[in-house]
Amino acid sequence: MTKVNVYVTLRESVVDPQGIAAKDALHKLGFDEVGNVRIGRLIELELSGTQAEIEERVKKMCEVLLVNKVIEDYSFEIGEVAGK
Amino acid sequence: MTKVNVYVTLRESVVDPQGIAAKDALHKLGFDEVGNVRIGRLIELELSGTQAEIEERVKKMCEVLLVNKVIEDYSFEIGEVAGK
Repeated sequence: MTKVNVYVTLRESVVDPQGIAAKDALHKLGFDEVGNVRIGRLIELELSGTQAEIEERVKKMCEVLLVNKVIEDYSFEIGEVAGK
Repeated sequence: MTKVNVYVTLRESVVDPQGIAAKDALHKLGFDEVGNVRIGRLIELELSGTQAEIEERVKKMCEVLLVNKVIEDYSFEIGEVAGK
């Protein structure tokens, strides 16, 4: 099984209310050095296959299920092979 | 402003219903090679300060607001300096 990390972020042009709330809360707590905050998703997948297969399949998974391409962007990193 | 990516994941011992739902959906769509799926958060921060200050401050932000340490783990990566 290979581990893949998929990073899903809101597109730059999309307002991120959750990020704005986090930023406001950080400011209230005294973290005034914080500028922009954006909150996205980290999807950790374990899957089998060769490097090339995995790359192609993960792209497809993102397109059909994991990512809302209208408002989100994604990238992924194929990591180390986990045990078994 | 320096960019920092904070990766927040559920602890191994905590059940992840969202991940299970995603895995089931992927299987139904024919992605049978997928094993475990876990869904976490990716928090993108922009903040000012030296490398050492940033490291200390981001840790504090995670402890007091961004991460629920009872059920979540986190790590972060200090990235490139963005414009201005």
